[in-house]
Amino acid sequence: MARPQTNLDAGRQLLLEHVDILVRKRGAADISMTELATEAGMSPSNIYRFFDSKEALLEAVAEKWFAEKIAIMEAVARSDMPICEKMFAYFARRFLLTVDQYEDDPALYKSYMEIGQQYFEVVRGYVDLGDHYLAEIVAEAMENGYFLDLTIDETVSLINQMLQCYVNPEAVMFIGTGKLNVEKLQRIVDTIFRGLSAPMQAVADNVRQIGVLT
Amino acid sequence: MARPQTNLDAGRQLLLEHVDILVRKRGAADISMTELATEAGMSPSNIYRFFDSKEALLEAVAEKWFAEKIAIMEAVARSDMPICEKMFAYFARRFLLTVDQYEDDPALYKSYMEIGQQYFEVVRGYVDLGDHYLAEIVAEAMENGYFLDLTIDETVSLINQMLQCYVNPEAVMFIGTGKLNVEKLQRIVDTIFRGLSAPMQAVADNVRQIGVLT
Repeated sequence: MARPQTNLDAGRQLLLEHVDILVRKRGAADISMTELATEAGMSPSNIYRFFDSKEALLEAVAEKWFAEKIAIMEAVARSDMPICEKMFAYFARRFLLTVDQYEDDPALYKSYMEIGQQYFEVVRGYVDLGDHYLAEIVAEAMENGYFLDLTIDETVSLINQMLQCYVNPEAVMFIGTGKLNVEKLQRIVDTIFRGLSAPMQAVADNVRQIGVLT
Repeated sequence: MARPQTNLDAGRQLLLEHVDILVRKRGAADISMTELATEAGMSPSNIYRFFDSKEALLEAVAEKWFAEKIAIMEAVARSDMPICEKMFAYFARRFLLTVDQYEDDPALYKSYMEIGQQYFEVVRGYVDLGDHYLAEIVAEAMENGYFLDLTIDETVSLINQMLQCYVNPEAVMFIGTGKLNVEKLQRIVDTIFRGLSAPMQAVADNVRQIGVLT
């Protein structure tokens, strides 16, 4: 037998689908709780059983949007891949998901980007979470001899800047998937490991690779 | 005695200043030739003596906006700086100019960015010119033993992506000058030279630097 919690969750899911429908119809224009209730065929007071404020609704929209990305970040951060592969997977898997989301419905994607800009305080926590997991990966890289002359924060900032095109979800809109691809992303991650403060190990690898030492 | 050409130029300059005034007042909202004439205290037919179409006006606005950047690109590309310094100067000097333009009047800057998006066909030539000079610098770097396993186009694309935060003029608006600075830009350029396809010379330099070879 379904518990009340489940009915509540089902109602929330349904309302979130109606948010998609409204955003498809109207773009990023501000949506009120009353309009959402009407769209979902619900009385304006009833909607507050599911979301007790517009803020709660927006947080649920963000939670749904970021759910898969968080699952990827957690899975990659916990995996035992070699550190260079882990860094690549951390950015590449989220980038490929972003491309899928964008290509699935470019107009809807663009509208959600605008909503995200409008309510950046709701999104900020997820951006910070991305930096948190990246900091864990950077710390592991440091244990492996990389980035030793930088702090974790400095390294996170430089990596985010060098991979901005693959981190910023708006880049697929203005640069496009023709110019952005995982091969280039792989090349940039390699460049970061080989060139960002070039530690002993990485230099030794490069040297072996080109045959200066054997 | 002033030649007619000079009067024409003076009139154009004056009208471009009135474009600034209008954009400050109204933001990026589309400006008609008639409105500009009114703003400048000129008859609607008279304005066509200076710009024979809206397109000609927009091209003059873009030309004025990019003039200093083009001067920097030309000066740096022609200079005889060592190649790593030249690459750094190419990005750093334009970035510093961008920061100045932004900080001088953030609202006006934002409006011009929006106008640039609206009329991207007018801006495209300047973006291509940036890639042209970067390709020249990359070719010189290749003569110095860098990026040897890549084509010029691949290298230009990867460098533009890794330095996106410093190349994209909108980045100062959404990332901010707190996180973007020339120290990080220098670090990224170093990373590119040391890590992007790590050629013989760069690896030898790294090796010397950390004392594997002497």
